[in-house]
Amino acid sequence: MLNGKTLNKVRIGVDLGGTDIKFGVVDSDNNIVDKWIVPTPKGCDNITDTIAGKCREIMQSYDVTSVGIGTPGLIRHNRVTAFNLDLNAFPLSDVLTEKIGTPVKMSNDANCAALGESAEGAAKEASNCIVITLGTGVGGGIIIDNRIYEGAGSGGELGHMCIQHNGIPCSCGQKGCYEKYASATALIRYATEHAQANPDSILAKKYTANGSKLNGLMIFDSEREGCPVAKKVIDIYADYVACGINSYIFIFDPDMIVISGGISNAGDLLLDPIRAKIPFDIPLKAAQLKNDAGIIGASLLN
Amino acid sequence: MLNGKTLNKVRIGVDLGGTDIKFGVVDSDNNIVDKWIVPTPKGCDNITDTIAGKCREIMQSYDVTSVGIGTPGLIRHNRVTAFNLDLNAFPLSDVLTEKIGTPVKMSNDANCAALGESAEGAAKEASNCIVITLGTGVGGGIIIDNRIYEGAGSGGELGHMCIQHNGIPCSCGQKGCYEKYASATALIRYATEHAQANPDSILAKKYTANGSKLNGLMIFDSEREGCPVAKKVIDIYADYVACGINSYIFIFDPDMIVISGGISNAGDLLLDPIRAKIPFDIPLKAAQLKNDAGIIGASLLN
Repeated sequence: MLNGKTLNKVRIGVDLGGTDIKFGVVDSDNNIVDKWIVPTPKGCDNITDTIAGKCREIMQSYDVTSVGIGTPGLIRHNRVTAFNLDLNAFPLSDVLTEKIGTPVKMSNDANCAALGESAEGAAKEASNCIVITLGTGVGGGIIIDNRIYEGAGSGGELGHMCIQHNGIPCSCGQKGCYEKYASATALIRYATEHAQANPDSILAKKYTANGSKLNGLMIFDSEREGCPVAKKVIDIYADYVACGINSYIFIFDPDMIVISGGISNAGDLLLDPIRAKIPFDIPLKAAQLKNDAGIIGASLLN
Repeated sequence: MLNGKTLNKVRIGVDLGGTDIKFGVVDSDNNIVDKWIVPTPKGCDNITDTIAGKCREIMQSYDVTSVGIGTPGLIRHNRVTAFNLDLNAFPLSDVLTEKIGTPVKMSNDANCAALGESAEGAAKEASNCIVITLGTGVGGGIIIDNRIYEGAGSGGELGHMCIQHNGIPCSCGQKGCYEKYASATALIRYATEHAQANPDSILAKKYTANGSKLNGLMIFDSEREGCPVAKKVIDIYADYVACGINSYIFIFDPDMIVISGGISNAGDLLLDPIRAKIPFDIPLKAAQLKNDAGIIGASLLN
């Protein structure tokens, strides 16, 4: 301890989400040595005050060398737009830099999670990797030479590659985006259709017992229990996921592909059918760091 | 002159093609100060002997600091496979390095052309750009921080992104590849179908007069002459080209998109309908260096 601070230099990683804000103190081995979660307040000013306040508080206890933040939304020219957080072309990192009194770096939350997986998770051995996050939509991050690639600021929007010309309309204004076919939302859509069409299946029974609602766990559990309908659903889904992965392999020839997001917890039940449709000798792994990826990645922004 | 050599340091750029091999002497301002074209001989040994011989000859007249070569085919782990040139996982640059006695760098020919456009052509002002070559297939190159991105070696295969899940089968083994819909070959396919279906159109008359064959020039000439059928064909084609470009913008958020290949000579007749379908404020330009792009780009490999 020196003046009440620990001697070791650490970094702060902030993972800003719609529900809560996660703060982590990350040491030089990329271990999270301290962690806090606070509810995300309403409004842009309250968000910045909350983040700045917590960072200043942390800096009273730790010798902090840098602060990085992962944010939802689109970043262009260092301004973030995330309507659900009341951020409209808002210079979040500049405002925080001024409030905290130390330089704050910012990137997209999916990019930060990808950087975390690249630095300390599934892709630790890969210099170039593509991390694809299967969630409500499809996000992800492009890691080149162990750094986030974001182009002019909003690169890495991996869910908006078109895989079906004139396909399903997407909120981005385009049609046929990857995320309309390969998100966890899409998996649940395929499963619901098949459960309704096959009312005697194990999948349909879980669907009915749960008030006509399915989640990812139920689909993979059904397959584990031998349900051929669930197997078919996962196969249809894997085909769409693999379609995008194969495109990303042609584009990037990466060292590795990492799948993250809640359904990546299904492990090889999800990954094996995807692997079966990838004709390349490139490893496909599930993310390892789960919720910590964003904090570790944000702390590594520079 | 010093010992018979010019004093200024120059680089050799070699553009290896199926028909001929182009050699250029490139100065520090990226001007091609000397140039030779020789027919491509048959067989791997003859190709390497021809390239090495010409480079050694050039090095007797010029103070050469580096040699770079652009080759067709797929490069992985510094070995090139281009069946039409009898190259099968062949360590072309290593063999040339030994034969010439100076380090030879190698990349894909489309990558070299992209690097040339980035260094001295349409994308000179852009650090990050995507060059899309519309030819028999669709090729291209990814330029990040003014350098070629090629991942483990074969990145930048921009024509094999899937834009139509389960679409037209491609020679790569996948279905629905961008190049099946956005190559010059595809444009001529759309035009041929429309000419046959509209025998009174200006386009159909050119088609018939040319022995039931169309080329890109005839299609754009027809539009210039007011042919609504040609206009519709170009619009259909532009929609597919833009579909891929929009995906690449979401993925890379580049500073610029450059279109190269023979049909880019149509200029705004081709580019304007594409631009109309791109909802982003990112410049779309035609390539400027034409056949010299590959030589200049190869000379810049490092």
